[in-house]
Amino acid sequence: MLDLILGGARSGKSRLAERLALESGLPVTYIATSQPLDKEMAERISHHRARRPAEWALVEEPLALANVLRENAHQDRCILVDCLTLWLTNLLMLDDPLRLAEEREALLDCLATLPGRVVLVSNETGLGVVPLGELSRRYVDEAGWLHQALAERCQRVTFVMAGLPMVLKGESI
Amino acid sequence: MLDLILGGARSGKSRLAERLALESGLPVTYIATSQPLDKEMAERISHHRARRPAEWALVEEPLALANVLRENAHQDRCILVDCLTLWLTNLLMLDDPLRLAEEREALLDCLATLPGRVVLVSNETGLGVVPLGELSRRYVDEAGWLHQALAERCQRVTFVMAGLPMVLKGESI
Amino acid sequence: MLDLILGGARSGKSRLAERLALESGLPVTYIATSQPLDKEMAERISHHRARRPAEWALVEEPLALANVLRENAHQDRCILVDCLTLWLTNLLMLDDPLRLAEEREALLDCLATLPGRVVLVSNETGLGVVPLGELSRRYVDEAGWLHQALAERCQRVTFVMAGLPMVLKGESI
Repeated sequence: MLDLILGGARSGKSRLAERLALESGLPVTYIATSQPLDKEMAERISHHRARRPAEWALVEEPLALANVLRENAHQDRCILVDCLTLWLTNLLMLDDPLRLAEEREALLDCLATLPGRVVLVSNETGLGVVPLGELSRRYVDEAGWLHQALAERCQRVTFVMAGLPMVLKGESI
Repeated sequence: MLDLILGGARSGKSRLAERLALESGLPVTYIATSQPLDKEMAERISHHRARRPAEWALVEEPLALANVLRENAHQDRCILVDCLTLWLTNLLMLDDPLRLAEEREALLDCLATLPGRVVLVSNETGLGVVPLGELSRRYVDEAGWLHQALAERCQRVTFVMAGLPMVLKGESI
Repeated sequence: MLDLILGGARSGKSRLAERLALESGLPVTYIATSQPLDKEMAERISHHRARRPAEWALVEEPLALANVLRENAHQDRCILVDCLTLWLTNLLMLDDPLRLAEEREALLDCLATLPGRVVLVSNETGLGVVPLGELSRRYVDEAGWLHQALAERCQRVTFVMAGLPMVLKGESI
């Protein structure tokens, strides 16, 4: 069962994903894609970490997401990936379009065969005026295309606003 | 009964809030948090004012929102606050984190005991690429956290797009 | 029957509109409002064009939208306009407020009498922090007001996220 959780900044999307992982009753592996590049980022990461149960396994992987999903997914385990947006940003920052295309295809290809429960979290950023700059535009494009491709492959897609879920596809939460 | 109305710029959120206030059948006190800092802002304010019924009481308060809510709420009255986003911006501009924390706590604390009808309006701004600059990021963070905390405390939460309401929590409109 | 499709960048709104046009079973006229001002824009346009059925009639009109709607609408035809946001941007770039007001009124006035099927696509950009600059603010204001006015006049309004439709008004898709 694949869950995709979409929401804006501070929308409560991570909290909802963590609730779903807890309610699965399965042991949880948390895949963190963020890299503590600066002090602000380090604070956000430690804020998130403090909220998570101590017994959750943690895997940090900024780029090779399909690989760690294949290695860690198991029929008796719940995998939580938080978040795809940072993974995509990490790939865009490499400035290597081939690598980006490979990682994206690998992710989309592996989803259908992952056993167990998988909860994917991603940031919806396409509903504002896109700021100037090619990177912003490419990011918004890539994120939008990725979300469409993921939404086709996931059994449930949920949009979160102010901590409240709106299920766009699949069974209600 | 506490209503939270969320929506983007020019989404019709104020108009919906005003409709709810009118339909309550109660006398209305309108709490305006905006300050006419420039000509454009003054025009927006007078545009909003022209639309409102003349018999509504008006209270202008940029900062001490919990105070004016406690003073004005009454079991036979509807209070309309438009909007929380500007109140939060006013507090952020003070550059006084302690005051911000105090006002926020005071607001969240007073809600449970306010008598009568209260309609809160706020701007959803977390669904775009966050522009550069620490103030923008802090604003988006604070607004998102505030919306989550308010949504927990309100009996109904409604997202407005193109003037059309989507109820996220509570009874349909 | 008037359909309004709203969605963010790369949300799948054009794809949904094209699906509705195909499913109408009617011959389709596609009204493109975009102008290939630079290489990136030309690529986006050719990407969209490659996806559309070759038998669809194409009308390119950046400004006089009401005119081409009146000329092309027919009870046995489906008109697809993609997208209103670019039309509005084209009008704003003229820096001629009178022309903008005229074209907007003409569009809103003609909708009630258009025969056949019409599908309008527009970009929702009011849910982020509005970037600095008067043009960005005016654009967000104009787009928001336009969406409210259109939503009143359309029989169905649908918000698209990650390719998934949420019907805000009218019959489910």
